[in-house]
Amino acid sequence: MRALILAAGLGSRFKSQKAKVLHTILGKPMLWYVLRTLRELNFREIGVVVGHQAEEVKKVFEGEEGIFFFHQGNPKGGTADAVLSALDFWRDYQDYLLVINGDSPLVKVQTIKNMQRYIHLVEEYENIKLSALLLSGFLPDPTGYGRVVKDQGGNVIKIVEEKDATIEEKQIREINGGVYFFYCPHLLDVIFSIQPSPKSGELYLTEAIALMHKKGYVVRSFMAEDQAEVMGVNNRWELAIAENVIRLRILERLAVEGNTIHQPETVWIEPSVVLEGEVEIEPGVALRGNTKIGKGVRIGRGSVIENSVVEEGAIIEPYSIIRDSHIKSGAIVGPFAHIRNHSVIGEGSHIGNFVEVKASEIGSHVNAKHLAYIGDAQIGDRTNIGAGVVFANYDGKQKHRSKVGQNAFIGSNSLIIAPITLGNYSYIAGGSVINKNIEEGDLAIARARLRILKGKGKEKLL
Amino acid sequence: MRALILAAGLGSRFKSQKAKVLHTILGKPMLWYVLRTLRELNFREIGVVVGHQAEEVKKVFEGEEGIFFFHQGNPKGGTADAVLSALDFWRDYQDYLLVINGDSPLVKVQTIKNMQRYIHLVEEYENIKLSALLLSGFLPDPTGYGRVVKDQGGNVIKIVEEKDATIEEKQIREINGGVYFFYCPHLLDVIFSIQPSPKSGELYLTEAIALMHKKGYVVRSFMAEDQAEVMGVNNRWELAIAENVIRLRILERLAVEGNTIHQPETVWIEPSVVLEGEVEIEPGVALRGNTKIGKGVRIGRGSVIENSVVEEGAIIEPYSIIRDSHIKSGAIVGPFAHIRNHSVIGEGSHIGNFVEVKASEIGSHVNAKHLAYIGDAQIGDRTNIGAGVVFANYDGKQKHRSKVGQNAFIGSNSLIIAPITLGNYSYIAGGSVINKNIEEGDLAIARARLRILKGKGKEKLL
Amino acid sequence: MRALILAAGLGSRFKSQKAKVLHTILGKPMLWYVLRTLRELNFREIGVVVGHQAEEVKKVFEGEEGIFFFHQGNPKGGTADAVLSALDFWRDYQDYLLVINGDSPLVKVQTIKNMQRYIHLVEEYENIKLSALLLSGFLPDPTGYGRVVKDQGGNVIKIVEEKDATIEEKQIREINGGVYFFYCPHLLDVIFSIQPSPKSGELYLTEAIALMHKKGYVVRSFMAEDQAEVMGVNNRWELAIAENVIRLRILERLAVEGNTIHQPETVWIEPSVVLEGEVEIEPGVALRGNTKIGKGVRIGRGSVIENSVVEEGAIIEPYSIIRDSHIKSGAIVGPFAHIRNHSVIGEGSHIGNFVEVKASEIGSHVNAKHLAYIGDAQIGDRTNIGAGVVFANYDGKQKHRSKVGQNAFIGSNSLIIAPITLGNYSYIAGGSVINKNIEEGDLAIARARLRILKGKGKEKLL
Repeated sequence: MRALILAAGLGSRFKSQKAKVLHTILGKPMLWYVLRTLRELNFREIGVVVGHQAEEVKKVFEGEEGIFFFHQGNPKGGTADAVLSALDFWRDYQDYLLVINGDSPLVKVQTIKNMQRYIHLVEEYENIKLSALLLSGFLPDPTGYGRVVKDQGGNVIKIVEEKDATIEEKQIREINGGVYFFYCPHLLDVIFSIQPSPKSGELYLTEAIALMHKKGYVVRSFMAEDQAEVMGVNNRWELAIAENVIRLRILERLAVEGNTIHQPETVWIEPSVVLEGEVEIEPGVALRGNTKIGKGVRIGRGSVIENSVVEEGAIIEPYSIIRDSHIKSGAIVGPFAHIRNHSVIGEGSHIGNFVEVKASEIGSHVNAKHLAYIGDAQIGDRTNIGAGVVFANYDGKQKHRSKVGQNAFIGSNSLIIAPITLGNYSYIAGGSVINKNIEEGDLAIARARLRILKGKGKEKLL
Repeated sequence: MRALILAAGLGSRFKSQKAKVLHTILGKPMLWYVLRTLRELNFREIGVVVGHQAEEVKKVFEGEEGIFFFHQGNPKGGTADAVLSALDFWRDYQDYLLVINGDSPLVKVQTIKNMQRYIHLVEEYENIKLSALLLSGFLPDPTGYGRVVKDQGGNVIKIVEEKDATIEEKQIREINGGVYFFYCPHLLDVIFSIQPSPKSGELYLTEAIALMHKKGYVVRSFMAEDQAEVMGVNNRWELAIAENVIRLRILERLAVEGNTIHQPETVWIEPSVVLEGEVEIEPGVALRGNTKIGKGVRIGRGSVIENSVVEEGAIIEPYSIIRDSHIKSGAIVGPFAHIRNHSVIGEGSHIGNFVEVKASEIGSHVNAKHLAYIGDAQIGDRTNIGAGVVFANYDGKQKHRSKVGQNAFIGSNSLIIAPITLGNYSYIAGGSVINKNIEEGDLAIARARLRILKGKGKEKLL
Repeated sequence: MRALILAAGLGSRFKSQKAKVLHTILGKPMLWYVLRTLRELNFREIGVVVGHQAEEVKKVFEGEEGIFFFHQGNPKGGTADAVLSALDFWRDYQDYLLVINGDSPLVKVQTIKNMQRYIHLVEEYENIKLSALLLSGFLPDPTGYGRVVKDQGGNVIKIVEEKDATIEEKQIREINGGVYFFYCPHLLDVIFSIQPSPKSGELYLTEAIALMHKKGYVVRSFMAEDQAEVMGVNNRWELAIAENVIRLRILERLAVEGNTIHQPETVWIEPSVVLEGEVEIEPGVALRGNTKIGKGVRIGRGSVIENSVVEEGAIIEPYSIIRDSHIKSGAIVGPFAHIRNHSVIGEGSHIGNFVEVKASEIGSHVNAKHLAYIGDAQIGDRTNIGAGVVFANYDGKQKHRSKVGQNAFIGSNSLIIAPITLGNYSYIAGGSVINKNIEEGDLAIARARLRILKGKGKEKLL
């Protein structure tokens, strides 16, 4: 099966340097959704017409097989010009070609399947070969969309754009969804006869429909069940709406699979995220990229987790940010924790409020519950890191690493200057600056003598 | 008045270990809402059919009077089997029994009242004793619901499930809401005649309706005003929707009572929360448990307040988390403050950004405006706590408490090692580690000598 | 052109001390939106009827020209009484007067323009002078609204309130929107004949319509396109809904102008905010007051920016709060940063997590990436500020300022006691307390001797 994606356009109403199909929905280019839909439908040969920002568009398909690129010389040439650019892809194809716009991320797999089935049914029961089957929608207010004009037998005569429509045609509420199956030999028969639009100079693919009808070919329309599928994404407001539609589809699927999602309007979960079941998602959470959340985990309000793994039994308190990291079973993170750059938080460890962990490996049952910066460090099991502790990993020129053993105790407001090693059971008295390695079991203390000036405090304050 | 709650089911579509009725809506089990509705209606005798997770389900009713539990031996026996399990509860009752599912949290008090009124009106004006009155809804798309089949006189003939419905019956848009008043003597007359479903083997309570009709008993339906009332909660997506419905009902009530709520879609307020009026709730706020917010308080964006009191005139800045604590009049908290474990913030005190207060009592007009950890401490009035101050309450083995007097000054980056007492007007110089008690009015300073190495700084940096 | 705003009411259903029209929508009083609409329509003479909290209401118009205030002696006198209070404003005006309630923030400029055009068309083509044209809406459920009763010719006979409506009148779905154009000579003809309502004693302006009709004057209604325009704002729930309507209008405009807005339901942008294009707004963001966001800036989830400028190329990470400050090109702020009180963050500087910057000027390419308080300071270019650094700007009595040169290095957990000056290339060793000026290129270190007690650590921990 072959499909052709039209992805050459600029999308001037997006007011952007970026090609329209590269604008993202939940972190993925619009085009990615179209590609994914085609792959789920087992289209193995996919033509892509590129034009504006062709190189960037091609990157979306990196690593994919069976992709054939075609350059549209003039990305403003129109949809029929785009299909013509890919003439080599379908000229000799004696079957149906799916033509879909790269900015149609909302079309569902099931809808395309239903269209395929309809073509076969017509062939079998009516003994007709459809020349084209176009996806249509039914809108209460069709203003701005191309209308599907049919004859009394239900066959499509033509598609008429809003601006060219008569008053009667404007009453039609069936609108063109921009997704077509074309029987290639018949498409070849008509496509060279398409005339440029007198107004825009573009060659419109919709003209092929009228030409087919005139030749006596049969064209039908197929109504989408979900009207969102035929929604255009022609500016960034429509992009926001499309993103909401896809977002809610993902959330509904995850909920039905057995995860609890509170206030779905406020939750952001990207398509590549995996929830293992019985996960509880509080409002305002964002799960991004290749993130995997273990069974039964609760993710607190407003937390952001990106390209990370959170194992079963962990708890993520509100407003935690976790990026490119791994939170092990039974760990507690947050609130207001920030874990990043390939950090690992061990089993049962607790990283609390206003703590940043960067590029560090934290063992199991470690506590760092308040106000600390742990950077470029390796921390052994059961070690306690007090409030206000900083691992000074930068000396003004270079970064260095620290290593702390198991069962160690680092008193509050201490400064650990890397590179350094603190042994198992080492004990750093609070407020100390440590710039030498401390061996196992030793106590290190660096404190100035406490002087008390009688009555001087009150003097300073009054 | 007696009511019977059916709460035995597992809810397999929830894909959960937990009984369906224990899944929460705004922090309370679904079942809690049903119980509350019945209590507001003055049902004094409430039967509850339990089965799956019976002990946990019973806990929802702890401390309630007039509750009678009945075990359904086979929680998959069907709704009629459930009602039969409670036979002792209603066999000799010569009045109407309300039968309601434990997963019907959206049914309104007023709707049940209206059903009761309708029964009386029929009795008075038509001189008929209704055998059953069932709550129904009118759905544009009734797919999946049981349809209410009526005769021309408007009496209910039967309820037909989707899968057993004829094409004509599928056109019916009046659907069964699963809430019934049964006249017990008539119910007794028919319930033993219910046959198991050929497909599932379950005994369906809806069969009682058909049997009543056959016997010449009169059954009517009563249409819910708000279609949400008859919505099923059969999977976790429907749970999310039900939670939204109840959430918006609470928010609407609070707004109408005179509180300003911005972006209600993003706000979470649980049913037990009290707002005293003229409260302003910014977007993304969560108020949980037994929380009370005083008159005129503004709660900043994204703050979470749980089981706490915030008095009139206090200000909660964005992203503050307050749990099990008490914020007194005129205090300012946040942004990014975390107050927990039975802390008290005194009048006019200011707990600012990146400050954690745990199990501490803060007097009035205390300032702790930046980056501090105050744990297990008592702080006197008008004391100032600098940025970076930590109360070290843990020595690696035990927790200790600190006590600071009034009008004291604790300089920035100081470390106060508990157990300790700092007197009134004591002054701790910034950067000091204090591990001895400081008496009233004394100045304490612990600082190393400052050495300056000419030109060495630039050397290290270049 | 003259318009009269009725802004005397208390709005008792708001349950507030504050006049109804002063309740805010996106930070501006409701009244402000009405004024703005009139200004866009080029109304140069605007009468305002004030009553409840007259002085506060007048403040909304401060600095505006062509505003004429009229006091309604009895703010509960009714709408006709309010118009009568302003008799001097329109008695001799031989043209159309627009009368609009101060609580009608949703009426659109285009709608008023269309009403004006309609008056002119009727004059030109029908040769009739309309006596009044009232804005109406069409509601599926019109309960509670005044109904527009018309004769067969489409002329308005009267407006009938819900409570006075007959059963037939209650079926009417065209409702009164409370916005009127009156031809002043005709209004003068009837207004003194309005009788007080027998129920409330108020004089209703809607009575003028019936009186006009009786006199043979022609009154028409004009249907609003967007039904939200005629929505009443009569309690704080309706206020929340109105705020949502205006919020989404602003967001739609900004998106169409070329900015990407994710999850618009969760985003708050006030009307005075400027986005320069290609801005990306993550969910939960709030932009307030006179804020300007440069081209291509990404604002991370949950950030709050108020009265601030963020230049092109800056990045705002999630949960940053920026107030009254200026973020220059290429700077990175957050996550969890707090910048306030007229601070400036220089080009390419990085203010990271749990850092507060207050009333400080940060040069370019400065790093302060973790847990720091920078208050009342000036920091030179390329200086590095370590984690846990505090600028102690308060000594218990007074605030002082600090000045740090270029290329300096302030080691982690250091305390910089103001007033102080640190020179270019000065280097502060981590953990030092600095209370003397440090000259260019010098290294300053204040550290206690590190003592190591063999085996004592393990002893303390076991």
